[in-house]
Amino acid sequence: MGRALLTDLYELTMAASYRRRGMDASATFSLFVRDLPPRRGFLVAAGLDGCLEFLDGLRVEDDDLAYLTLAGFDRASLEALEGLRFTGDVWAVPEGRMVFAGEPLLEVSAPIAEAQLTETFLLNRITVETTLASKAARSVIAADGRDLLDFSFRRTHGVDAAMAVARTSAMCGFVATSNVEAARRYGLHVAGTMAHSYVQSFGDERAAFRAFAEDFPGRATFLVDTYDTASGVEAAIDVIRELGLEPPLGVRLDSGDIDALARTARRRLDEEGLGEVRIFASGGLDDVDVARLVAGGAPIDGFGLGTRLGVSADAPSLETVFKMVEFDGRPSAKFSPGKVSLPGRKQVFRGERPGDDVLALRGEVAPPGTEPLLVPVMARGTRIGPAEPLQAARERFEEDLERLPEPARRLVDPDAPRIRISDELASLAGRVQDGAR
Amino acid sequence: MGRALLTDLYELTMAASYRRRGMDASATFSLFVRDLPPRRGFLVAAGLDGCLEFLDGLRVEDDDLAYLTLAGFDRASLEALEGLRFTGDVWAVPEGRMVFAGEPLLEVSAPIAEAQLTETFLLNRITVETTLASKAARSVIAADGRDLLDFSFRRTHGVDAAMAVARTSAMCGFVATSNVEAARRYGLHVAGTMAHSYVQSFGDERAAFRAFAEDFPGRATFLVDTYDTASGVEAAIDVIRELGLEPPLGVRLDSGDIDALARTARRRLDEEGLGEVRIFASGGLDDVDVARLVAGGAPIDGFGLGTRLGVSADAPSLETVFKMVEFDGRPSAKFSPGKVSLPGRKQVFRGERPGDDVLALRGEVAPPGTEPLLVPVMARGTRIGPAEPLQAARERFEEDLERLPEPARRLVDPDAPRIRISDELASLAGRVQDGAR
Repeated sequence: MGRALLTDLYELTMAASYRRRGMDASATFSLFVRDLPPRRGFLVAAGLDGCLEFLDGLRVEDDDLAYLTLAGFDRASLEALEGLRFTGDVWAVPEGRMVFAGEPLLEVSAPIAEAQLTETFLLNRITVETTLASKAARSVIAADGRDLLDFSFRRTHGVDAAMAVARTSAMCGFVATSNVEAARRYGLHVAGTMAHSYVQSFGDERAAFRAFAEDFPGRATFLVDTYDTASGVEAAIDVIRELGLEPPLGVRLDSGDIDALARTARRRLDEEGLGEVRIFASGGLDDVDVARLVAGGAPIDGFGLGTRLGVSADAPSLETVFKMVEFDGRPSAKFSPGKVSLPGRKQVFRGERPGDDVLALRGEVAPPGTEPLLVPVMARGTRIGPAEPLQAARERFEEDLERLPEPARRLVDPDAPRIRISDELASLAGRVQDGAR
Repeated sequence: MGRALLTDLYELTMAASYRRRGMDASATFSLFVRDLPPRRGFLVAAGLDGCLEFLDGLRVEDDDLAYLTLAGFDRASLEALEGLRFTGDVWAVPEGRMVFAGEPLLEVSAPIAEAQLTETFLLNRITVETTLASKAARSVIAADGRDLLDFSFRRTHGVDAAMAVARTSAMCGFVATSNVEAARRYGLHVAGTMAHSYVQSFGDERAAFRAFAEDFPGRATFLVDTYDTASGVEAAIDVIRELGLEPPLGVRLDSGDIDALARTARRRLDEEGLGEVRIFASGGLDDVDVARLVAGGAPIDGFGLGTRLGVSADAPSLETVFKMVEFDGRPSAKFSPGKVSLPGRKQVFRGERPGDDVLALRGEVAPPGTEPLLVPVMARGTRIGPAEPLQAARERFEEDLERLPEPARRLVDPDAPRIRISDELASLAGRVQDGAR
């Protein structure tokens, strides 16, 4: 089975219709986010690598056609789809860059049937990864330099999503993931401690901690809240002393009043001369919780973030769209109420800081002191250059984050920058709209 | 690569530790939801088939061990994991049944290392599918007999999640999905119309509708809002007349005031003697919107639900947990603040209606007039019977929905039933908690 069925039926329907009719002129589709969710002051572009990998392998194969026969496609439509593969060009914002409402993350130009057929998958991939990267970025802002770990695998929307959380959180600066397959696949640090069941199975915290330290020397982080956190901390202290354990060492708090428990744990560990034992917190935390704990001065060295990171709970999706902006050399747009799109192939020129942006037509000359965000990434169906390491995206993210204006950076009630529209684009939009009337 | 790395690191760590120590006694873990989200009055059990398929193929393979070597596992741990596969028993609530907070959806009993290693994947699978099925079920209640279509693929959390939405929405009674691969994989009806870009590419609605009807006779549903809905409806009427099109025929409204536009469209179609042309609505709708439109009498025959269904936007996750309730023949529990679990293998005895439930120990005799919800589905690592058709789950769902009490069924401010706990279970919980003090 090829990838051609990883789509909505209507993409195949339209592709067949275009090819039956010999409509093979080039179309450009622009993928952008209409409006940011209320809780987002910026987005982090992500998912491009998966898109390119998909386009690279996209072709209609015989068994796809066999299924479409069952689904009611007639001979003419099947023949029209036969041999279809992606031969177009793609421009995109590189992963890790910050983007805002209205800015294309990606533009596809190809014979209209091919371009249309990419819609569903490209939207899916960019939406999920950009959603997740943007949530992870907020956690990084919240943690203000403390370690962050991705603990989300158990409650993401499937395995695919778990991989995306691990990948995008690493892109934004998380130090490790608990997801072993993601760590293998993307070359990430993998981390983890023990579950409550481990402590329960020994029936006694000291026995459990002792066994764990013996079996995994150098990885001893003890989960201290199975019965009562204060006595769990004492058990950890006893075992560290008794076995003469050396750092790295840690305790993990997973329930209760994390702020108060972290302070008590820190005090007790310090009293015992165990200043090097690190304190980790987990248990339903998200970026806003982390920011509160950090701002309040809770002595926590690292946070394990799970479900609310993994599903981007406060904004689980984005208003991404994939709109035709040019066909057969003519700019095109749509004027449905509340869903107007701007015609023409685009470029975003960025000034000093993220959000200091001008949305323009691709052919425009860059205003002085700006750089273009969209770059060519695929030409005539072939990727330009090899897939890049995740580190490259991470560096771009860090650069953008450093320059992000405070109103966009705020976790609560952020103000996203409003991007400007170039005169040329505004004038083209006016002409196209007048033409449609 | 086997499936053994589709897990959190700590599961492998603990599994290795148990096996190094010869701790091979059987443990039972219970998978349940602590509390329902505020907007949920019931949940629909789903994901079991994927869990059984995973367990069936779960084994630690050589290349898994090779990666774990890189991840820092020492020789003793690698040897301990070698050859591990799942040899345990599973009881579960069949897919499609309604369940409530505290009720196990699944219980795994196996040598502790094996049982532990299943945690991450089983939680992931049950959580995503139960989340999505429960959201789809609300849509079915809202639609009150009108057709529902899954249009979510483009904005689900990955391809895996898109398949889960298609599968679980079909389980709850959706008539079709736009997701072609899901339709192929699960034997579903596939449906779809055209995008705005199709209309744009012809530059003229009538030309686009005409071409579509010619290429796909018998599937002509026209998207009428690319420029202006009222004139789009007129164009559809003209093309239907001009080509003498026969049903099935439809128009799709995708923006603006859907209620008003549907009434105008219905009136115009009826005036033209086209009473058989159906009206479909889409465009960011969710269950509450559907309920409002249906209650207000909007003449809409079918709804295409996308993003908010696909990510379960108002409750994108569930508080699922996987807790050890028995080890080596002894009941076990956890007493962390706010996270207390009940000891012992469980059964749920259901009376007349969903929610009329008693949470009990597995060995208890069913109270008169009740039926047990959990049934054995895997024995000694082997599935009991073949995978069942989705239709079986759908029938169970329909039966439960019919008997669901109104407070749980409400879409806004539902009251989920509070299940009772059997005397035997309450007494065991007391004894275990006393023992832990």
